[in-house]
Amino acid sequence: MKILILGADGYLGWPTCLYFSQRGHEVVGIDNYFRRNATKELGSESLIPVPDLPQRVKIWEEITGKKIDVHIGDITDYEFLLNIFREFSPDAVIHYAEQPSAPYSMIDRDKAAFTLQNNLTSTLNIVYAVKETNPDCHIIKLGTMGEYGTPNIDIEEGWLEIEHKGRKDKFLFPRQAGSLYHTTKVQDTDMLWFYVRTWGLRVTDLMQGPVYGLSTEETDLDPQLMTIFNYDEVFGTVLNRFIVQAIAEYPLTIYGKGKQVRGFLNLKDTMQCAYLAATQPAKQGELRIFNQLTEPFSVNQLADKVKTVGDKLGYKVTLNSIENPRVEKEDHYYNVQYTGLLELGLEPHLLTDEILTGLFNIVSQYKDQINKKAIFKGIKWK
Amino acid sequence: MKILILGADGYLGWPTCLYFSQRGHEVVGIDNYFRRNATKELGSESLIPVPDLPQRVKIWEEITGKKIDVHIGDITDYEFLLNIFREFSPDAVIHYAEQPSAPYSMIDRDKAAFTLQNNLTSTLNIVYAVKETNPDCHIIKLGTMGEYGTPNIDIEEGWLEIEHKGRKDKFLFPRQAGSLYHTTKVQDTDMLWFYVRTWGLRVTDLMQGPVYGLSTEETDLDPQLMTIFNYDEVFGTVLNRFIVQAIAEYPLTIYGKGKQVRGFLNLKDTMQCAYLAATQPAKQGELRIFNQLTEPFSVNQLADKVKTVGDKLGYKVTLNSIENPRVEKEDHYYNVQYTGLLELGLEPHLLTDEILTGLFNIVSQYKDQINKKAIFKGIKWK
Repeated sequence: MKILILGADGYLGWPTCLYFSQRGHEVVGIDNYFRRNATKELGSESLIPVPDLPQRVKIWEEITGKKIDVHIGDITDYEFLLNIFREFSPDAVIHYAEQPSAPYSMIDRDKAAFTLQNNLTSTLNIVYAVKETNPDCHIIKLGTMGEYGTPNIDIEEGWLEIEHKGRKDKFLFPRQAGSLYHTTKVQDTDMLWFYVRTWGLRVTDLMQGPVYGLSTEETDLDPQLMTIFNYDEVFGTVLNRFIVQAIAEYPLTIYGKGKQVRGFLNLKDTMQCAYLAATQPAKQGELRIFNQLTEPFSVNQLADKVKTVGDKLGYKVTLNSIENPRVEKEDHYYNVQYTGLLELGLEPHLLTDEILTGLFNIVSQYKDQINKKAIFKGIKWK
Repeated sequence: MKILILGADGYLGWPTCLYFSQRGHEVVGIDNYFRRNATKELGSESLIPVPDLPQRVKIWEEITGKKIDVHIGDITDYEFLLNIFREFSPDAVIHYAEQPSAPYSMIDRDKAAFTLQNNLTSTLNIVYAVKETNPDCHIIKLGTMGEYGTPNIDIEEGWLEIEHKGRKDKFLFPRQAGSLYHTTKVQDTDMLWFYVRTWGLRVTDLMQGPVYGLSTEETDLDPQLMTIFNYDEVFGTVLNRFIVQAIAEYPLTIYGKGKQVRGFLNLKDTMQCAYLAATQPAKQGELRIFNQLTEPFSVNQLADKVKTVGDKLGYKVTLNSIENPRVEKEDHYYNVQYTGLLELGLEPHLLTDEILTGLFNIVSQYKDQINKKAIFKGIKWK
């Protein structure tokens, strides 16, 4: 399979490139280094030093003999993207190339406008490039579980059948996101659903929960193949942040009551999900939506797990309930369906003490690189 | 009241400026002449020659002694918009400044990208300007009935209470729009709803159906005060197009079966609705949604009405069912609620033969200006 990966330098993008390459697929990756530049600007660079993308694929080739072709550029530039589609003619494109941080999108107007323009223009450009070059190309889009918010009803897998005044119809499951970033993903969904209906494109939307972890089969081959790992409040996901905080003996930053529940998954399972979606594509004219998580946890549950394992390893882990910088419900109903990817063949790596210990062990090797000042700045929603 | 009108040069914007000014309010208008420039590019300029915006307000002042302050500029330029908010400090802002054409948004990637960026960035900028200068300012946003599409259930007024597996919650009524333009309005709704929940803004979203007509109390004062009137497939609304086609003895362009039903309203009622919304504002933290229409009609019903009146006036009106350039259901359920604006005091001007005759009479004065080549080009959705 020929697969185009957008956001190829990122936390998910890079290991996804390796995962497909390792399994014999022809991979082209694109990145504009947004995350590197933004984290530099915010003083919160990757814990693990990571070579640039051309160097990374060179190292990959040295180790495995497999080639990955990469381009540094911005997919909001339509001509740039279109040319790559024309030359490569991918069977599937995986779209990770969005501004992925909720706090970043809430800093100020300029960062909100950037998030809006980057995320929506990139999705539009992919839609047009697919239509112009090969309408059969499968678009795999990274959505987020955050699109649904925390409704008072069960969260179904993308869609909801509604009966109203004796009549029925099926709609996108109601979406009400908790940040501008998450809202751009809702807007993506609206747009993709429109073009699927109108042009018969084939699209899979992966509604992913927060990812944790550092290890994949491929990145474990060599320390130079590791993925970017952010641990600050802006670009770090919650469990990764807690591990780093525990190792740095920085009290775990629990926002408000800590009863916020989300659905989590291991980085290894993101790889599986993207691969399962690509190798078992959506049909033409189908917007196929999967809820991509393996276990729901509350923030308090995660903090307790990190404390239990951290304390066992000799760290003095403390918890700190701080004023919630976000606007979100801290106590809410949460019951989510996530059977679609399991039916495709996903074999989850659940969050055991062993997995957590493994994460502690890797991160502890970079303990001296932790910049405590980067951990929490308190970017407020209001 | 101090009222800021965005898109002040447009079909709705200009008469809205006059309507508020006439009633003693302080009006500032902004426009970037997008519609003038786009219709020039497409060879489909206003049937009625219209002076530029500074000239229009000069004429208005000469006739009524009332001043309207206008600025030519682009509200996607945040500094430009913010400065006007700072200087004027409006009590309410009416946002008509979006790319308003469905076919325009479907022409190609560049026009789609323009529509997306213009419409969403303008809305984001208004949200930020209101938050930074006066969070109490009432945002009145022009939405569209087209956001709902044609669902198989009754269309409620913006919201829907859903019971699912024994639990209840209230959500935005499901939206599934029929063009990229309409989709940007759905995306606007997502974004406004997010910022209303998060920042407690006060917003009214007017879900307007297609508007027809040319006459308002104020524009009738002098021919030089008339509003821009487009009659081509791109910027003209369906009933206005049919009137011009009838007068030009051009067969009425009925798309497909013509059984498509929409909710229509008279230009005079748009004025009333905007005024009622402004003088009876939404509460802080409220996204108030009104379905802004007075009567549903099918395309065939409109064509028949135009033929009946046109034939009586001595035109030879013929109907032509052409291949539908759009992707839309041509035979569908449509039952829409629209009581909110009536409860605020709206007194509808329904589509009588008298109203149609009045429209024929005005348009016939400009018969020689009709450019038949501009009427239909067949911009296809696919």
